[in-house]
Amino acid sequence: MSPTQPVSGFSKLSKKQKINWLVETYLDNDPNATKILTQYWNDDSEIQRLHDEFSENTISNFYMPFGIAPNFLIDGKLYALPMTVEESSVVAAASKAAKFWLTRGGFKTEILGTEKLGHVHFMFQGSTQDLEKLFASTLHDQLLADTAQITHNMRQRGGGITHIQLKDKTQTIPHYYQLEATFETVDSMGANFINSCLEQFAKTLQAQVQESEIITTDHKDSLQIVMCILSNYTPNCMVRASVSCPVEDLAEEGVEAAEFVEKFQRAVLIAQEEPYRATTHNKGIMNGIDAVVIATGNDFRAVEACAHTHASRDGQYRSLTQCEVRDGNFHFWLDLPIAVGTVGGLTSLHPIVKLALNLLGNPNATQLMGIIAVGGLAQNFAALRSLVTSGIQKGHMKMHLFNILNQLGANDIEKDYFLIYFKDKTVSHHAVVEEFNRLRKQKTN
Amino acid sequence: MSPTQPVSGFSKLSKKQKINWLVETYLDNDPNATKILTQYWNDDSEIQRLHDEFSENTISNFYMPFGIAPNFLIDGKLYALPMTVEESSVVAAASKAAKFWLTRGGFKTEILGTEKLGHVHFMFQGSTQDLEKLFASTLHDQLLADTAQITHNMRQRGGGITHIQLKDKTQTIPHYYQLEATFETVDSMGANFINSCLEQFAKTLQAQVQESEIITTDHKDSLQIVMCILSNYTPNCMVRASVSCPVEDLAEEGVEAAEFVEKFQRAVLIAQEEPYRATTHNKGIMNGIDAVVIATGNDFRAVEACAHTHASRDGQYRSLTQCEVRDGNFHFWLDLPIAVGTVGGLTSLHPIVKLALNLLGNPNATQLMGIIAVGGLAQNFAALRSLVTSGIQKGHMKMHLFNILNQLGANDIEKDYFLIYFKDKTVSHHAVVEEFNRLRKQKTN
Repeated sequence: MSPTQPVSGFSKLSKKQKINWLVETYLDNDPNATKILTQYWNDDSEIQRLHDEFSENTISNFYMPFGIAPNFLIDGKLYALPMTVEESSVVAAASKAAKFWLTRGGFKTEILGTEKLGHVHFMFQGSTQDLEKLFASTLHDQLLADTAQITHNMRQRGGGITHIQLKDKTQTIPHYYQLEATFETVDSMGANFINSCLEQFAKTLQAQVQESEIITTDHKDSLQIVMCILSNYTPNCMVRASVSCPVEDLAEEGVEAAEFVEKFQRAVLIAQEEPYRATTHNKGIMNGIDAVVIATGNDFRAVEACAHTHASRDGQYRSLTQCEVRDGNFHFWLDLPIAVGTVGGLTSLHPIVKLALNLLGNPNATQLMGIIAVGGLAQNFAALRSLVTSGIQKGHMKMHLFNILNQLGANDIEKDYFLIYFKDKTVSHHAVVEEFNRLRKQKTN
Repeated sequence: MSPTQPVSGFSKLSKKQKINWLVETYLDNDPNATKILTQYWNDDSEIQRLHDEFSENTISNFYMPFGIAPNFLIDGKLYALPMTVEESSVVAAASKAAKFWLTRGGFKTEILGTEKLGHVHFMFQGSTQDLEKLFASTLHDQLLADTAQITHNMRQRGGGITHIQLKDKTQTIPHYYQLEATFETVDSMGANFINSCLEQFAKTLQAQVQESEIITTDHKDSLQIVMCILSNYTPNCMVRASVSCPVEDLAEEGVEAAEFVEKFQRAVLIAQEEPYRATTHNKGIMNGIDAVVIATGNDFRAVEACAHTHASRDGQYRSLTQCEVRDGNFHFWLDLPIAVGTVGGLTSLHPIVKLALNLLGNPNATQLMGIIAVGGLAQNFAALRSLVTSGIQKGHMKMHLFNILNQLGANDIEKDYFLIYFKDKTVSHHAVVEEFNRLRKQKTN
């Protein structure tokens, strides 16, 4: 079903009117559709209004499971990680990795940098030298002066603009330059702050080029601002999460330590050298990272884009984690560039986010960077561990089986039966349905 | 607050017990914490149980706004796009881009491939030639025969294993080989299907190496399976979304067409050539993509990893979208490798996902690929359009302002006042709080 006419003024409709239009236009007037959408509203209309305002044209709430992975020993402190993720096995895998490292020294984190970046991208047809002269003589200082009001609060919190440089990019694109600025945004992710500073930079740049005697008159009007925008790639805003222990401590029932380490190292090496594997390897890391990023009210698209750009930094897309054995010790670590905040955005608005941050002891932004990176490292450890030992399907298949059984409307007794039935068989939709039908038919006979 | 003792058996606790432990251990026994977590439960215990089972240790629901971007003309049909996204401005920008292209021919989509990939990664110390001989003589066919039961349903739906090859990777890592298989998974994303096939491949490979007379006895035991896993990088599962129109049709009030196109093209060119910009540019694309991916029950980490790997395929991280003017026509398009499903996983379990798919006319997987790519292209168009014209902060700042005002507990009249007040000023937390306090103080005086 598809309408022949577009709708106008949709955003101005009330939530109920929006739903009515949708159900009439696309959902065959199905009253059940309206019921589903409203069934997911919160009973507390204040809470619901709050969530409606986070985005535009909101008609309901999309539930993602909010779960807990306990027993994370991070820098000597025990954490229960809040994780928001719709994929089965992620929270279970994280919990398993946490438990494994609990008795082996736990996770360590280290901040390698907190610098954020933004650019005014612009075109200029005049001389590079003149531009450089203008920058050094008055422009640099004026950029700082004109943003003083915008940076006021941030400076009081110990942040602000840390460095501004003029970058000649004319070798890449003719007449292309950047004002590149670095920022400290303390406990905020800083996107709004950085973009506001950059837009002011553009105004100041334009004014100075017009006013300055350094820039020749015939080139003044050649200045064109292309755009002012932060970069989500922050290679100098980086955290390291790591685990290490003597090789022999990795032994477990049925797993010989040296053999496990050999296989594990090889799996990481393959993810370093083979892009097809690296993508999936890093995807698994991001399972753990995004779950904590979302639960703590941060922007997972920004975190994803930054991590994957970093993975390709040397010209080949590679694993984000690394593994090494030194002096009989196993070392496994993740260097993750990541920009997150613990103030601003959703962090002080979304009640479950506030609770998640509380649960983590209200960390500052650098502590949160570490906790998130640990989530990613733990996930990768658990995935590699099961890949190189029992294979990944064993765990997944149990969830897969339950999903199929839920679809079929199986009861608890039937579910128990199927767990045993598939202990030594491969779960496929076909096989489950066949056995389910056989079972039910038997019952009715 | 941090416990001194880890918890054991956490996953076995009931949901209420889990919450009690958390609140006792980390949240200072705050009764309000328990209230918040339970306030987000659904009244319908059946629905809640369903959501609890999607993941492990689930204690509540994390709300993401479920919103609608109407008026998407895609391949001649009008769609209302379901979007799940917590970031403000994304749905608004998508709606704006949809409206813009509605009168300019709309969006077009084209499937460039549907092939998925998986690998058995293994080590073998014997001769490559012997392995190739084994593969050609009996192994290849046996791999198909031994997976016949697993692939039964998929073959009936027109999919299955389409190609298997032995890859010699010993130049990358000594003794390293792959069985690389390609799959058609029809309307399912196919992860479970592919991984199950690959794990069976590994068993068959091991059995054949042991039994075959081609492999010399002293090398039989050198075979080691490292892992069996699908690749989330699917360069041959690709969709193109595009828009095009005569350059002059891009004119709008206050925007001259030729100038707009020049600036727009330059912005895309910069994202092609400058990785710091490309990351943010692609992040914006993923805002639109992930919102539809999540709303339709697909795995956004897989989609993210694939898209960003693709962005770095030639050795430099670049823009996913491209722009060109040919014969007076403006062309703007996105080539996106993406593996999604419309059956399996959450698609038939999550009520809001089912409704979202209904809303889209229950597309098959290839149609959904197109719709998702359009969401990304629209988002990028809207972002570039505002970046090269008014700047991105104008739209963002209104939401930013509302977020600050909500935090301060401003009422509707105050919100209206602030909208006017900040019309010609830069929104900063500092400036809003200052004016808010002045206003409230005035009122009480």
